[in-house]
This record gives sequence, C-alpha cells and structure tokens, in this order.
Amino acid sequence: MDDSMKEDIMTMLECYKSCTRTITHCLQMGGEHASPEHINLLMDCAKICALAADFAIRGSINHAALCRLCADICRQCADQCESMAGDDEEMKKCAELCRKCADVCERMAESA
Amino acid sequence: MDDSMKEDIMTMLECYKSCTRTITHCLQMGGEHASPEHINLLMDCAKICALAADFAIRGSINHAALCRLCADICRQCADQCESMAGDDEEMKKCAELCRKCADVCERMAESA
Amino acid sequence: MDDSMKEDIMTMLECYKSCTRTITHCLQMGGEHASPEHINLLMDCAKICALAADFAIRGSINHAALCRLCADICRQCADQCESMAGDDEEMKKCAELCRKCADVCERMAESA
Amino acid sequence: MDDSMKEDIMTMLECYKSCTRTITHCLQMGGEHASPEHINLLMDCAKICALAADFAIRGSINHAALCRLCADICRQCADQCESMAGDDEEMKKCAELCRKCADVCERMAESA
Repeated sequence: MDDSMKEDIMTMLECYKSCTRTITHCLQMGGEHASPEHINLLMDCAKICALAADFAIRGSINHAALCRLCADICRQCADQCESMAGDDEEMKKCAELCRKCADVCERMAESA
Repeated sequence: MDDSMKEDIMTMLECYKSCTRTITHCLQMGGEHASPEHINLLMDCAKICALAADFAIRGSINHAALCRLCADICRQCADQCESMAGDDEEMKKCAELCRKCADVCERMAESA
Repeated sequence: MDDSMKEDIMTMLECYKSCTRTITHCLQMGGEHASPEHINLLMDCAKICALAADFAIRGSINHAALCRLCADICRQCADQCESMAGDDEEMKKCAELCRKCADVCERMAESA
Repeated sequence: MDDSMKEDIMTMLECYKSCTRTITHCLQMGGEHASPEHINLLMDCAKICALAADFAIRGSINHAALCRLCADICRQCADQCESMAGDDEEMKKCAELCRKCADVCERMAESA
C-alpha cells in the first residue's frame, strides 16, 4: 500500500472519529443539534466512512463504488454541520473534516 | 450450528435492532431520553450485541468472554430503559429485549 | 415500522449471517474457496448488508442509495458463490440468500 | 479529549488496520496462515479494536471493561502471529502492533 493510499485511509478514519465525537457534542448542545435528523446524518457519515476505510484497507474491488456514496454522504454532513455551526469550533472542525473526506473519496472513486 | 445457537444469535440481533431503533425514538422524545448518557448506553448495547452475534456466527474462541461483557451492558441498558420508560411502550419493549439478551449471553458465557 | 420493512431488514441480516458463516466454511474448504478474492467479496457482502440493515432500522435518508450499492454487491457475491458451489449445500444456500437480498435491496432502492 | 487519549485511540485503530490487512496477506500465503482458526482470531482482534476505539471516542462508561477484553484478544493475536511469522515482515509487524495495543488497553482498563 503506497503512502498516498495510507493518507487517504487516515482521512476517512479521521472523519469517522470526528462524526462520532460530534454526536456526543450535539447531544450536549441539545435543540436542533440533538434532532433525530442531525444525529442520524452524523451516524450515516461515521458508519460509511468506517466502512469505506475498511474496503480500502482490504483492497476490495467495490471500493470505488463505496467511495462514491461515501463522498455524497460526507458532503451532506458537511453542509448540515456548517449550517448549524455558528461559532461552535467543534461543529466547524467536523464540517471541515467531512468536506476533506468527501474530496478524498471523490478522487478515489474517479481514479479507480 | 444447532437450533438453540441460531435462536440465541437471533436474540442478540433483536436486541441490537431494538436499541438502534430506540435511539431515534429517544431523540424524538427529547429531555433526559436524549441525554448523552442514555444515547451512549443504547449505542454501547447495540454495538456490543452486534459484535457478540458476529463472534457467535463465526464460532470464535473469544465468544464466551465477549458474551460475559455483553450480558453486563445489556443489563445496564435494561435498567436505564426501564427506569425511564413510564408508559412508553417502545422503552418497555426495549428493556425487555435487553433483559432477555442478557440472560442468553450469561448462559452462553457459563456454558462455554 | 411496518411488517414488510421488518421482513426486508430480516432478509438483509440473514444475508449478513450467511456470508459471515460462509467465510469460515470456505476457509475450511481451502483452494479457490479460500482465495483473497472470494473471502474479500464475502466480507464486502456481509459488511454492506449489515450497514444497509442499520440504515433501514434508523430510517436514514441515505437508505435507498445504500440499498442500490448493496444490491450490486449481493449479486456479485451470489454469482461467485454459485459458480464455485458444485454440490456444496452451504455455498448454494449462501448464493440463494444473496440473490434474495439483492432483490429486496433493489426494490427498496426503487421505491424510495 | 487530551493528547494521550488521542494517541491511545490511534494505537487501537492502527491495530485494527494491521489485523485487517494481515487477513488478506495470510490468505495469499495460504496453509496454516489461511486456517479458519488464524483468520478468525485476526477478525476477532480487528473487530474488538475497532469497537474499543469507538467506546473511547464516545467516552463510554463501559470503555474500561471493553479494554480489558481487547487487551486479552490482542495478546492472543500477537502470540499467534509471532509464532507463525518466521521471516515474514508483515506478520512480525502485526504481532508488534497487537502487543502495543494490548499494553495500551491494559493501562486504560486499570486507570479507569
């Protein structure tokens, strides 16, 4: 596995970690942050990033197809976190990592 | 795999499904139901039940040890759901399934 | 959640269980059954089915998109299991469950 | 989350990645490396490390208990990889990461 692939897998796992941490953070904030819609989207994003990393680690033939879907969900999550973030640093950071992961996944989907 | 094992695995997957569904339900209820502590415990229980089922399906040598921990978490989750349930049918049902799964896991841990 | 949805989720979890069990079975058979390509495809199928069930249980807005990909991977896995099955009952059974799950996922993807 | 915790979580995810990659590597090697016993132990270790990281990221109250079990499985996996490694660099590296993760998990279990 080359270094660029290792870095991409790390980006997916960082996004998984960020979304997972942000779920707890949003539950503490309450209100729309703790709505089923937002928490479910954070869960979607955390889980699909973890799976995309897993497919990449194993060199699965279905990796590119999964990355395409992962990019889409990451972008939804980035948009929603951004629109809710206000001055909250954790939400802004999560949006940023989701967007970075979306870019990585899109590139992987296209280069496959 | 004998029928009793198949049924036990089904109980663990039922508990995983119930806790996962109950997370969304609790977020809709709000208040203490949507507290990080309660949601995190439901997540703990959903995830450990899914993993215990996985270890059982694969016939892992570590299955009994995992079942012991799974039984403990299921019982915590049953207690917390019960104490919050009031008249809510979904919470009562979830507590019941967690308790059933705890019993199954304890039996599996002891018979291994 | 209506009964038809419950049944569909059960089909996805049955496919997850079947592919997971079949991995151990194929490792015991050895040869091409234990090739990285076949084991990796069984893992892809097991993991995406478990995730598709999870998205369905939570009522995720991304469920239909995930079902589309899941259907595709299930069909690949069904084809490969079938082509290797010969007289092996477990392989034939796994192929059958993968095909059933592919049909369910396709229907869910279209009706969303 | 302090830096030491972040590093510990990274160690668990590194161990998950290493065991997952080693499964494919062992299937390519064949023989006892591709035995159901060895592949199942690598799967046990990959999956429990991923779950232990998840519990740590969420700050779960059950994290210490899960780390205790994770340490035990990591040590089993380290021993088995070591005994099979011979001159194989990937197997030796995997054994090393499993042992490092076992140490981290033991410390976390005791300090909780």
